[in-house]
Amino acid sequence: MATIGIGLAGFGTVGAGVYHNLATNGVLLSQRTGHTLEVRRVALRDPAKSRAIMPPPEIVTTHWEDVVADPNVQIVVELMGGIDAPLALFRTAILAGKPVVTGNKALLAEHGAELFALAAQKRVPIFYEAAAAGGIPIIKAMREAFVASHIIRIAGIINGTSNFILSRMSELGETYAQSLAEAQRLGYAEADPTLDINGWDAGHKAIILASLAYGFWVPTSGAHVEGIDQVTAADIRFAKQLGYTIKPLAVIRAGADQEVEVRVHPALVPRTHVLASVNGVFNAVMVHGDVVGETLFYGRGAGQDPTASAVIADLAEAASVVAGSTRACVGFTPHTLYGRCKPADQAVCPFYLRLNVVDEPGTLASVANVLGSHKIGISSVIQPESQDADTVPLVFMIHDAITGEMMRAAETIRGLACVKSVDALLRVETLTES
Amino acid sequence: MATIGIGLAGFGTVGAGVYHNLATNGVLLSQRTGHTLEVRRVALRDPAKSRAIMPPPEIVTTHWEDVVADPNVQIVVELMGGIDAPLALFRTAILAGKPVVTGNKALLAEHGAELFALAAQKRVPIFYEAAAAGGIPIIKAMREAFVASHIIRIAGIINGTSNFILSRMSELGETYAQSLAEAQRLGYAEADPTLDINGWDAGHKAIILASLAYGFWVPTSGAHVEGIDQVTAADIRFAKQLGYTIKPLAVIRAGADQEVEVRVHPALVPRTHVLASVNGVFNAVMVHGDVVGETLFYGRGAGQDPTASAVIADLAEAASVVAGSTRACVGFTPHTLYGRCKPADQAVCPFYLRLNVVDEPGTLASVANVLGSHKIGISSVIQPESQDADTVPLVFMIHDAITGEMMRAAETIRGLACVKSVDALLRVETLTES
Repeated sequence: MATIGIGLAGFGTVGAGVYHNLATNGVLLSQRTGHTLEVRRVALRDPAKSRAIMPPPEIVTTHWEDVVADPNVQIVVELMGGIDAPLALFRTAILAGKPVVTGNKALLAEHGAELFALAAQKRVPIFYEAAAAGGIPIIKAMREAFVASHIIRIAGIINGTSNFILSRMSELGETYAQSLAEAQRLGYAEADPTLDINGWDAGHKAIILASLAYGFWVPTSGAHVEGIDQVTAADIRFAKQLGYTIKPLAVIRAGADQEVEVRVHPALVPRTHVLASVNGVFNAVMVHGDVVGETLFYGRGAGQDPTASAVIADLAEAASVVAGSTRACVGFTPHTLYGRCKPADQAVCPFYLRLNVVDEPGTLASVANVLGSHKIGISSVIQPESQDADTVPLVFMIHDAITGEMMRAAETIRGLACVKSVDALLRVETLTES
Repeated sequence: MATIGIGLAGFGTVGAGVYHNLATNGVLLSQRTGHTLEVRRVALRDPAKSRAIMPPPEIVTTHWEDVVADPNVQIVVELMGGIDAPLALFRTAILAGKPVVTGNKALLAEHGAELFALAAQKRVPIFYEAAAAGGIPIIKAMREAFVASHIIRIAGIINGTSNFILSRMSELGETYAQSLAEAQRLGYAEADPTLDINGWDAGHKAIILASLAYGFWVPTSGAHVEGIDQVTAADIRFAKQLGYTIKPLAVIRAGADQEVEVRVHPALVPRTHVLASVNGVFNAVMVHGDVVGETLFYGRGAGQDPTASAVIADLAEAASVVAGSTRACVGFTPHTLYGRCKPADQAVCPFYLRLNVVDEPGTLASVANVLGSHKIGISSVIQPESQDADTVPLVFMIHDAITGEMMRAAETIRGLACVKSVDALLRVETLTES
């Protein structure tokens, strides 16, 4: 198994997340990809600063130049932020033949044309899944999955901070200032939230998505960007009255004239549309292609771990380039971390049980006794009205139960004198974050 | 630009869709990928059958063996259906060193372990995005985008036919038999819908997703599969009363014991959960990973074009393997099919306009006159109540208008004597299929 040397330039929230998750899930990653990714050099601004996650001092430097120049570093991860230093880093790394992974949307939006031209000339790839919508693999989808389609339209909520603010104004009736303060308190908005509020964080992402959709690097002057600070509580209220929700939207589309629209602005969206239900810091991107039809991607668009997930996926892809494997994977790579299926009767979940019972006192107690003797808990019971004079339906919602135990209890219940029939036994999936 | 020879084995709905879209969007595809994909051999069952789309007779054969053996065919697309012939095709093609693209979920579910072992031994890749959830790139996401995460749970609606049936039973109160008949009338269900109804179509897809998530090829005996034919109108009604919707669900998860659950069955899901809103023939897959967090993919899971989109994306990837390019793409490939941005004031969309006006007769007419003189149509007007005695809000919903024209109209309106202020001018995005 090849070991690939990684250099991290930037060790803020995302950089530390990449470092941490590479360590935590390193075995899984090696087994899945056939490569071991080893962080060999880290550039950070202030080595004296106390941090929860800290690389060993012998690999730390304060100069990104040391990361790129290190002969043991084969892939450079740029997570410094800003424009000038990252631009210099990209030029140096590409000329040195080292692939770069980045999450720097501002850099790519402003200098993408130059950087990709240099990358093409030197045949050194740039990876940037983390530059748009964090954990949502929308860059990969645009580059690879939707290659068969002319893109008719992309519409998305791609700035979590502004969506959080408008969601709270809409749901709780807060003012803009109150919602912004709450976003800052929860760490969703920077101390200086200018780029979130004025739309340009989403604008940079929209420029990247539009460029991938339409094959020319969209200049920043080609995007029309408005912020959410113009939205008032009154408009949110009137919009609701008219059947709409106000969302921070990015709209990218091309019509028959082949002219491309790139717009970022708050917009009224029909309240029944799925994008109207994307709330809080979540992001969603709808892509409508002429062959693929309508698709939607939803997930966490920012945050340490989701963004680190995108960076690490790019690192895995960059590693296969560095390792020179035309295609390491043949479509499925077995590994040994799992390997057993749970027998179906051992699975645990809540249940819905519907009986047809004799309408007489004591029936509910008899059934509850059987469930209790199987250590199965009842979360609620309803007895809907019945057309039948003699029998009535009796519906139980059952807490988490072992499937086999639930089946045995249902069999016993079926044998009770007061029970005419067991009409339904269905599983319940609460789908809460597990 | 390299031309890559494609052989199609199977020319049913999806095969014809691949052939058609390769022709229609061929220029776009060549510009994006740097390869021209040329269909050089087509195997179909009955060449005499009349078809809307028909390949030239000189490349048609009735034997898949001719497709695989053709020296001008470098990639084989298997869309025949069934098990025995496709299995023989895969073995022959892989031994001949030709990558295979397929949508055959039953084949992979039952013979994946053998086929991927052979593929690994011969270093010939297999592509199968079309085998699960059609236009949704969930295979690529599982293989590449989520590589950093332990998969905690996958929950999805991955059979459109059964979702269509349960959606109609739920929304229209139809019986199971009525909904099934309607699905067949609309062509959503096969004449023999057994695999859709008994859950095994979704079961095969769940086995593929679980295998990718957990790194061992899940045996069919490891999956617990139940059909939707057990669901009654009564249960749908009682579930609704309890706050749930009954959905055809696939649930894949692993707990702390590393044992993998693969289940397909109807289940009650909370009515407020996003999966409860996935209706009709649409598919959705939620993936919860420890690093990436909660994500969701939504789109058309079946049908000629969405499935063809998945096959063509796989073909593009297979072509870059065949062409021997370690990585043809450096992250962005410019092309010349578009290239201009539409000036922001030329964009057309509906608008929301809020004014503060003097509360007197004739005000509405004055504003409407200005809009009319700019050829801007009003779709509705509301006059909400006001706290202020002298002035009232006046809210217009405006039909599609040219942005610049709308801005100029708003300026003129601002100058009217009866208008105190123009308080808001926001865009409306109806997000209907454009």
